[in-house]
Amino acid sequence: MDIVTATPGSTRIGFIGTGVMGQSMAGHLLRHGYPLTVFSRTRSKAESLIAAGAKWANSPAEVAKASDVVIGMVSLPADVREVFLGERGVLTSLRPGGTIIDMATSEPALAQAIAAAAAGRGIAALDAPVSGGDVGAKNATLSIMVGGDPQAFAAMRPIFECLGKTIVLQGPAGAGQHTKMVNQILIAGALSGVCEAMLYARRSGLDPATVLQSVGGGAAASWQLANLAPRIIDGNFEPGFFAEHFVKDLGIILEEARAMNFALPVTGVVAQLFNAVLGQGLGQKGTHALMLALERVNSRG
Amino acid sequence: MDIVTATPGSTRIGFIGTGVMGQSMAGHLLRHGYPLTVFSRTRSKAESLIAAGAKWANSPAEVAKASDVVIGMVSLPADVREVFLGERGVLTSLRPGGTIIDMATSEPALAQAIAAAAAGRGIAALDAPVSGGDVGAKNATLSIMVGGDPQAFAAMRPIFECLGKTIVLQGPAGAGQHTKMVNQILIAGALSGVCEAMLYARRSGLDPATVLQSVGGGAAASWQLANLAPRIIDGNFEPGFFAEHFVKDLGIILEEARAMNFALPVTGVVAQLFNAVLGQGLGQKGTHALMLALERVNSRG
Repeated sequence: MDIVTATPGSTRIGFIGTGVMGQSMAGHLLRHGYPLTVFSRTRSKAESLIAAGAKWANSPAEVAKASDVVIGMVSLPADVREVFLGERGVLTSLRPGGTIIDMATSEPALAQAIAAAAAGRGIAALDAPVSGGDVGAKNATLSIMVGGDPQAFAAMRPIFECLGKTIVLQGPAGAGQHTKMVNQILIAGALSGVCEAMLYARRSGLDPATVLQSVGGGAAASWQLANLAPRIIDGNFEPGFFAEHFVKDLGIILEEARAMNFALPVTGVVAQLFNAVLGQGLGQKGTHALMLALERVNSRG
Repeated sequence: MDIVTATPGSTRIGFIGTGVMGQSMAGHLLRHGYPLTVFSRTRSKAESLIAAGAKWANSPAEVAKASDVVIGMVSLPADVREVFLGERGVLTSLRPGGTIIDMATSEPALAQAIAAAAAGRGIAALDAPVSGGDVGAKNATLSIMVGGDPQAFAAMRPIFECLGKTIVLQGPAGAGQHTKMVNQILIAGALSGVCEAMLYARRSGLDPATVLQSVGGGAAASWQLANLAPRIIDGNFEPGFFAEHFVKDLGIILEEARAMNFALPVTGVVAQLFNAVLGQGLGQKGTHALMLALERVNSRG
């Protein structure tokens, strides 16, 4: 497959899923001069992009007809499947030689299935989930973890460079998603440590803010501690990253571990605790709402 | 109680426990001009200090007779109890108006018992465990977490400033130890996340070193990831911090949680996994030997 290197002004990009992150990301591509066609389940979420010069299309298939490269940024694996493999999906109408890039966090096995289906039509596919959240999307400082063909990765690098600052090819199809799962396992451990540490601090009569002065600078330090412990102390549980999205990721991790026959005991417990977070109606709070669940587990009220 | 502020040249310090960390710490006090008397279970570990001008004493009680302030830096809570409360312990012979400082990581309840016994003899007591390890002890950059009377804390600050850079009074007797336990809970979460993440990376066919490029700079970042993941990748499991010492700390944490009736589910699982680390004969490896235990759990060999 000979893939043309993405070039502003000539490479036509389609963007599907213009939620909080997708809007920022698509906006960067527009500003860099890429002709853009967009589709989103809720059209109102695309209005600001249309006002800035993007064209609207009525389905993923119509986006693909008008594009050389189609990027997906939707929430759930089922939506990813529909966008790329569905009856009105991208692969029904993207031209051979085109490229698809799934930037949502999704299932590694689905990324492999999409890549296989794409290859059968002469289309390159990359899975390229990101970390860095809405702030990273807005400031184009995302970490982009890519799986797929090295030639396709090289050709799409100019697009990734509009969106992020850490851009690494991790391996073949699915490797980007696997790398994102590694990222989420790290977060599960660090975050649960922060919440249990804050619980211990409170129950043992310490002042959590004073404790942070002692523990924030050494071997216990983490991004989760530095960024979420102050919010926990302030009682601010707004997202950040939605708890219900983290539950989705934990489900993918544990399903992959089951399929590959290895045990992740700590991640397993964190996943159970997050089931309780959702059971307590806190799915649309930030991941640090794990603290509220832990407190409820340990309270009489 | 009227406590004299520690002053180089006049305040006589006793130091009990001259292991790797204690040797460095006592050395700093000598160099700052404090007259020093030392005792250690193994006299050879005190020889370099004696050569540098410290006096040797044959028991904690004899150290106390020659001192205004006695610092303990021994390994186990049972040793802490013996050093301060035992038949030949510090409290049998330290003069009223003296001060004792336990800088070992030990049980909060024991710190409170020592403080109560000391108060009955007109002696001030601080619990002041540290983090920062042998490097922090050597470079006098320890984080020192203090519990006890504010006046005693203020009087002993010149001593702490010889040893560390982050020096915080966390509350009454026991609060220093409780704060250290918060530190260890944070480490338990972050470290177990690192080990499970490395396991997932390997089993899913990723290159762990390449994965670190993608996950090291964002929400998954931690001291444990930055410092221990490269050692895991290199197959270097030397301590660092001994796994068997971490098991001691996890035991204290879970006993405190039991006594205060709250659940720490993730720390509980990590403690179980560390029982397996010891069961595999890895107690004198570093804490990141948790990785070896996880791999053995998941291997056929």
